[in-house]
Amino acid sequence: MTAGRMMRLGMSLRGLGYHIAAWRHPQVPADGTLRFDHYLRNARAAERGLFDMIFFADGIGIREKDEPRGSLARSGYEIVELEPMTLLPALAALTRNIGLVTTASTTYNEPYHVARKFATLDIISDGRAGWNIVTSWSEAEARNFNRDSHLDYDMRYGRAAEFVEVVTGLWDSWEADAFPYDKAGGLFYDERRMHVLDHQGRHFKVRGPLNVAAMPQGRPILVQAGASEQGREIAAATADVVYAAQDSMQAAQAYYADLKGRMARYGRDPDHLKILPGVRTVVGRTRAEAQAKFDELQSLVDPLVGLARVFNALGDLSGHDVDGPVPEPVIEPQMRSSVERILARARRDNLTIRQLYTQLTAGGFILIGTAADIVDVLQEWFEAGACDGFNVLPTHLPVACEDFVEHITPELQRRGLFRTAYEGRTLRENLGLPPHVNRHTAARRAVE
Amino acid sequence: MTAGRMMRLGMSLRGLGYHIAAWRHPQVPADGTLRFDHYLRNARAAERGLFDMIFFADGIGIREKDEPRGSLARSGYEIVELEPMTLLPALAALTRNIGLVTTASTTYNEPYHVARKFATLDIISDGRAGWNIVTSWSEAEARNFNRDSHLDYDMRYGRAAEFVEVVTGLWDSWEADAFPYDKAGGLFYDERRMHVLDHQGRHFKVRGPLNVAAMPQGRPILVQAGASEQGREIAAATADVVYAAQDSMQAAQAYYADLKGRMARYGRDPDHLKILPGVRTVVGRTRAEAQAKFDELQSLVDPLVGLARVFNALGDLSGHDVDGPVPEPVIEPQMRSSVERILARARRDNLTIRQLYTQLTAGGFILIGTAADIVDVLQEWFEAGACDGFNVLPTHLPVACEDFVEHITPELQRRGLFRTAYEGRTLRENLGLPPHVNRHTAARRAVE
Ligand SMILES: Cc1cc2nc3c(=O)[nH]c(=O)nc-3n(C[C@H](O)[C@H](O)[C@H](O)COP(=O)(O)O)c2cc1C
Ligand SMILES: Cc1cc2nc3c(=O)[nH]c(=O)nc-3n(C[C@H](O)[C@H](O)[C@H](O)COP(=O)(O)O)c2cc1C
Repeated sequence: MTAGRMMRLGMSLRGLGYHIAAWRHPQVPADGTLRFDHYLRNARAAERGLFDMIFFADGIGIREKDEPRGSLARSGYEIVELEPMTLLPALAALTRNIGLVTTASTTYNEPYHVARKFATLDIISDGRAGWNIVTSWSEAEARNFNRDSHLDYDMRYGRAAEFVEVVTGLWDSWEADAFPYDKAGGLFYDERRMHVLDHQGRHFKVRGPLNVAAMPQGRPILVQAGASEQGREIAAATADVVYAAQDSMQAAQAYYADLKGRMARYGRDPDHLKILPGVRTVVGRTRAEAQAKFDELQSLVDPLVGLARVFNALGDLSGHDVDGPVPEPVIEPQMRSSVERILARARRDNLTIRQLYTQLTAGGFILIGTAADIVDVLQEWFEAGACDGFNVLPTHLPVACEDFVEHITPELQRRGLFRTAYEGRTLRENLGLPPHVNRHTAARRAVE
Repeated sequence: MTAGRMMRLGMSLRGLGYHIAAWRHPQVPADGTLRFDHYLRNARAAERGLFDMIFFADGIGIREKDEPRGSLARSGYEIVELEPMTLLPALAALTRNIGLVTTASTTYNEPYHVARKFATLDIISDGRAGWNIVTSWSEAEARNFNRDSHLDYDMRYGRAAEFVEVVTGLWDSWEADAFPYDKAGGLFYDERRMHVLDHQGRHFKVRGPLNVAAMPQGRPILVQAGASEQGREIAAATADVVYAAQDSMQAAQAYYADLKGRMARYGRDPDHLKILPGVRTVVGRTRAEAQAKFDELQSLVDPLVGLARVFNALGDLSGHDVDGPVPEPVIEPQMRSSVERILARARRDNLTIRQLYTQLTAGGFILIGTAADIVDVLQEWFEAGACDGFNVLPTHLPVACEDFVEHITPELQRRGLFRTAYEGRTLRENLGLPPHVNRHTAARRAVE
């Protein structure tokens, strides 16, 4: 029974959507990633659909891969876009209720900047800011930040853990009653309620205090998407929301149980972490209409872009007929197991090269059908302990975002699985998370 | 004769205003620096007054000085405030014409971040972004960024010059015709119009290209406020606007001539740099009203805050009667010459301690009088080759900003010294600056 338990929904709005050919779709503005009105239209649609939050993933560079020449120029994906920490305040000014979450890398930032900017966003948005903590993994980013290659895994995650410690410490610099603003007496702040962090660790030395205070959420929402051991530990220790990436219900259940199970060690209530797997939806009034929508998108995948997608696994297939069979890999694969899985699928279903890459570019967990079909699956996952809701990865924008809001949201509401109005003022309240208590206030209360 | 030459005006909106006791004034919202509506109200007033731009100075930390204990808690100045690069996009969304300028430090940032964020702000604001290039000078900032003390002058300015080189290089990553967005042909961008920077210098290694493109201004406006030799060279080489700080017309004329004179060596037209000294104005319908407004502000200066203001020069005077004479300095002064100037003034005018610190806290170039009085002086400076306009430092907000717009702007317009409507769409156009030409486009044109 889910009596009263409500799904949490995020809408990922990076770029023109998560389908690799999105930009070529007739209803998608190809220049949208450089136009503010594109982002605003989608943010407003998600807010109309009462989504908990929108989310912008981010990379600090153009992730050119070692691909067949020319494919990047044809892909239109994550090439140029607005910087999300600059975009979100503008969206905050023109929306009212929806949460505003974006990525900031712990590898290529300084904690004081990140603490300050998200604190400011929280104030401007009246309590709707969220930070997706990532460690960054691409060479392209490293090369924009004085390095030749990215940091190794342990270094990255060591830095990330300390980075989060510093940022959350800075956010507690000022207690809620720190500012008497006493004009007559001449007292602006109360020194006993201001706290110098004086952090001195392995990666950072940060004195503080932060020069922002009075965040409506106490502090912004913390989001994490790391799937590895150390990523899971950071999530269990500190995250309010986790973006998951499993594409089968069994895998999602295992991940869910694992992550929630880790929380007790940090003295946390499992309910205080919301786990949201990513899902793509293609909805139609009939199944046939949905399938036709999907087929149209798939038909737009450029062969060069499709071949680039399989390049890392299968090597350069550009000399082969894309409508012929998938040949044996021409380069020595880096990761045997995933290549063999792909090849086995191609052999089993007798796929051409084109059929293989279009299947792969469609993405992981994708639901195609009527609103009822789609909600059947979402509900099953939700009730089977696989998730607390979903992070929607719209195939192409604004179409897939607006389709979700128009068709799927009402079906979720009809079944009592989703809100019919925002419950609270802040993202924290809408997610059903407890208020943040400043650590110094808590320590004082414990003594008193 | 100024036939047609128009003043350029900036409005500095940091904090609650530039008077040290601003926060205690009855019409000033003491909690304003943490409230978005405070900033919005002032930005809108400045836009109503047809200002070229608003400006937010910035420091990345709380500059606690080595002051008599308790004074910072009583000063209310630059303690907590919204982070300006997060604030400006929100203001961009709710204004139409006014330029949006803020500081980003070259000492505590990475050029890729700065290039990306200002490029994004330029797009969101439809061509109104400006970057004030500073090198940061305070220990407080150093201690928030892994250091014990700030970088020495040469290191800071060496880094600054290279930083600007990288940022402007990244801004030219994409030529204007780089994006055919050809859905039918499948071509998103034209590889020949994308340029990898591949910068490898003393301080930075940055590959590029930037993942933002198509800025309405070609690139954001560059602002500089460095008064030293190297600061002036950076300004002469690259700045579109300079904030100056001279408080006598003679000094301003000398600075103006020096800076414009340096531009020829960089092949630049002196008209393409706008030099704006800071000015504080206290305007009344009569001189008596103006003086009364000013006296009210001055009377609000807390003795502890006033003593802190003279502490660095004169040492701790807190044991003395503030209404008694200024004693001999009790500590060895760091900077003999400025201390002697202050002391000489105190002796000459027979000032009490209170009179001395209120004079000093009033700031440098301040005009108190009717609109006609004030505009007389502004016009004299403007016509005597001391400036191209002014950067207004309002004493207290929103009062001084709204007073300027209501009383001084109309007087400037009556005399034909200031616009009666925005001329252009972008800040660059309103400032009367030439369009930016992408360096790669220019190189191609030169060959063709
Ligand atoms: C929904 C989702 C969003 C993500 N967003 C970003 C992002 O914006 N930037 C980034 O560098 N990595 C992003 N990642 C990658 C994760 O942060 C993480 O590196 C990845 O899931 C691998 O986990 P690990 O780092 O623990 O090995 C995202 C992952 C998921 C599932
Ligand atoms: C109007 C004005 C605004 C300034 N804004 C800032 C600022 O926001 N942040 C900062 O660290 N310094 C700021 N400064 C300081 C200058 O960048 C510069 O360091 C100072 O004028 C001394 O010049 P120098 O660095 O060439 O010695 C400002 C100076 C002026 C006159």
